[in-house]
Amino acid sequence: MPKVDPKRTVAELQELRRLTADEEGAWRVAWTDTWLESRRWLRDKLDALDLETHLDAAGNLWATMRGASDRELLIGGHMDSVPGGGWLDGCLNTLAGVEILRRLHDEYGGRPPVTVRLVDWADEEGARFGRSLLGSSACGGTLVPDEERNRIDKDGIRLEDALRRCGVELDRAGESHAELANAAAYLELHIEQGPVLLDLDLPLGVVLGTFGVERHRLEFRGQAAHSGSTPMDRRRDAFLAAARMSPEIYAITGRHGGVSTIGSCVTRPGIVTSVIAECDVTLDQRHLEANALSTLLREAKEASERFAEEGGVSVAWQELWRIEPFAFHPDLIELADEAVLEAVGVSHRLPSGPLHDAAEMARAGIPSVMLFVQSLHGISHNKIEDTKIEHIEASVVALDALTRKAMAWVAAGSARP
Amino acid sequence: MPKVDPKRTVAELQELRRLTADEEGAWRVAWTDTWLESRRWLRDKLDALDLETHLDAAGNLWATMRGASDRELLIGGHMDSVPGGGWLDGCLNTLAGVEILRRLHDEYGGRPPVTVRLVDWADEEGARFGRSLLGSSACGGTLVPDEERNRIDKDGIRLEDALRRCGVELDRAGESHAELANAAAYLELHIEQGPVLLDLDLPLGVVLGTFGVERHRLEFRGQAAHSGSTPMDRRRDAFLAAARMSPEIYAITGRHGGVSTIGSCVTRPGIVTSVIAECDVTLDQRHLEANALSTLLREAKEASERFAEEGGVSVAWQELWRIEPFAFHPDLIELADEAVLEAVGVSHRLPSGPLHDAAEMARAGIPSVMLFVQSLHGISHNKIEDTKIEHIEASVVALDALTRKAMAWVAAGSARP
Repeated sequence: MPKVDPKRTVAELQELRRLTADEEGAWRVAWTDTWLESRRWLRDKLDALDLETHLDAAGNLWATMRGASDRELLIGGHMDSVPGGGWLDGCLNTLAGVEILRRLHDEYGGRPPVTVRLVDWADEEGARFGRSLLGSSACGGTLVPDEERNRIDKDGIRLEDALRRCGVELDRAGESHAELANAAAYLELHIEQGPVLLDLDLPLGVVLGTFGVERHRLEFRGQAAHSGSTPMDRRRDAFLAAARMSPEIYAITGRHGGVSTIGSCVTRPGIVTSVIAECDVTLDQRHLEANALSTLLREAKEASERFAEEGGVSVAWQELWRIEPFAFHPDLIELADEAVLEAVGVSHRLPSGPLHDAAEMARAGIPSVMLFVQSLHGISHNKIEDTKIEHIEASVVALDALTRKAMAWVAAGSARP
Repeated sequence: MPKVDPKRTVAELQELRRLTADEEGAWRVAWTDTWLESRRWLRDKLDALDLETHLDAAGNLWATMRGASDRELLIGGHMDSVPGGGWLDGCLNTLAGVEILRRLHDEYGGRPPVTVRLVDWADEEGARFGRSLLGSSACGGTLVPDEERNRIDKDGIRLEDALRRCGVELDRAGESHAELANAAAYLELHIEQGPVLLDLDLPLGVVLGTFGVERHRLEFRGQAAHSGSTPMDRRRDAFLAAARMSPEIYAITGRHGGVSTIGSCVTRPGIVTSVIAECDVTLDQRHLEANALSTLLREAKEASERFAEEGGVSVAWQELWRIEPFAFHPDLIELADEAVLEAVGVSHRLPSGPLHDAAEMARAGIPSVMLFVQSLHGISHNKIEDTKIEHIEASVVALDALTRKAMAWVAAGSARP
């Protein structure tokens, strides 16, 4: 039985690195020449398999291996990187998909039981214009052109113009949604970008879904007062209220799961001889379960108000951003677990903190799942991003095993949205 | 028996305000023309009493009423203000002293039992060059010219040049110390600049001494990590350690007295999607007792190290400034209490958070004490600084009563350093 050759995937990742990275990291930023070059390189590999390939209305690159059934199994990745990015983020997904298409080509002579498509999403990172998941959200149906139109990059170039240069009309990007007409399942492999598998000393994990996010700014308002002449019991210390809330935020998160982060603290007047009158902190809360995320937020609000009141200060919440959680499909999670067990003998289920294109597919109602492979240092979006070669190879084998199982699942008509 | 006329003091304060303040506040910043003008105005009033007046080597203005005894009772104040300052800070002290000299002149025909001197200290505020208590520290013997020489104001003018323009050679300022040769006691009246008397609804208080100060920057160092992909138990959150320490700083201060203030908090990288890697806070601790101040500092250090260790982060302390506490003289505190009781029927003892020229006198071994008069709003160094007229008047009466008692105490040779 034909098998994938994961060493070839490693070699191709190294080749891509030589082509599109330097000692400061990878430069495949979406809508730039280096990104276009990486896609031509990818397309050459797909053409060798005699696949139908085209760019959709959002600039996503699709390669289709037509099967006996029109029902489609999608495998996704993204060639784009952040500036000075790592050598694996996004392109591992894509090149593992290429290797699986090669195996399917060998095994079925180019006509597998169900249709299999590889999609290279456009602009997953949002590194240039600050809008991540651009291509997959257009395809999924959640991109609103008017909300993105006026974005500019650091050189003042408009997003709309940068897309047009690459053959994409922002106002028509939503037409990409037609690509999903027959989609029955979506698979994605990705480096973890966090330390969970590293800490557990596990090569691979199955992703349960992507966290929902609640992002807010909390504005505590007390009163400035001289540090020497103001007795402690007379103070309305904005920082103290924020400080007292912070361990409680950790405790709340410990009770309900998920993660909560106070990312910045700004104090005013901010001089050594004055009680702090104004203290602004940002809070980012994430959870896989919508109800639990609501609980995290509600209890954090209650804590902020309790400590504010106790300290004689006020607190106001300003919403910065929010997105709901997207759970992956339970059947596919089971199949992914089996695939990982077969590949490396041990599996682990974990949520994804960062968003991924798979979240847009799950959001669009396509049964989806992801595999994570361990990240060394738990770090990505950086030139030091790395994964052990044997783990990369195991991840290709696991994604291939998952593809077999998912194809059978799709063929059996088991897709339950 | 001749009495002071406190309404005259109020009228003179109002006159001074007309001369040296506008709707933005008072502009008697030391070493400026407006300050020199205010001193000429003061000197005219002293000359009317036929007193010996001169500037000493540090620019302090002395007016001496020679008495039967060479032993001297000093009454101090300062005509200088911060830019846009209040109408009472410093000049109330001076003008109350002038009124008392008038009473002594009437009562003793200009030759009281002990020598009485009014001193108008130069540059108490340090508003222009950032060096407060300049004149009194030169007189007390703690000014080190080389430490001050390179100070410049916001226009780039050197402190040394600004002083020279007013007839003061920085290197000879210490010769002012000779003025204290016969000093037996020092009295100073001042607005409280805090809310203690206001809260207690008391017009006047007796100051026990000036707080010692420990001023430090605490540098917590953890590790940046992605807010979505980093589990809570994997974090080394520099802000969390600082936050957990902060209520403990309040608790420590509650146990030992004094005041402690976290005046600023700076976080890095300070973005909503990252755990805080670096958190710097400033801490200002003050106490009237040197041992208790040491305890505040030691327990704060222990708390910072405990919370840092618990959070897997480091903490380093950088000293910014420190000064020891200066206690006022117990006999003079008793006499001041009696004077306040006579003036308004109720007294209260309190420490001074801000430093005052009296601290330099106490530090130089001159038995000293201060009276505080209530500040409306608890605020000074601001155009809204204010005190009820009847409280200003009572403060002049109380300082006069204290002068009587202190003169008797000096005459009796009771000065115990």
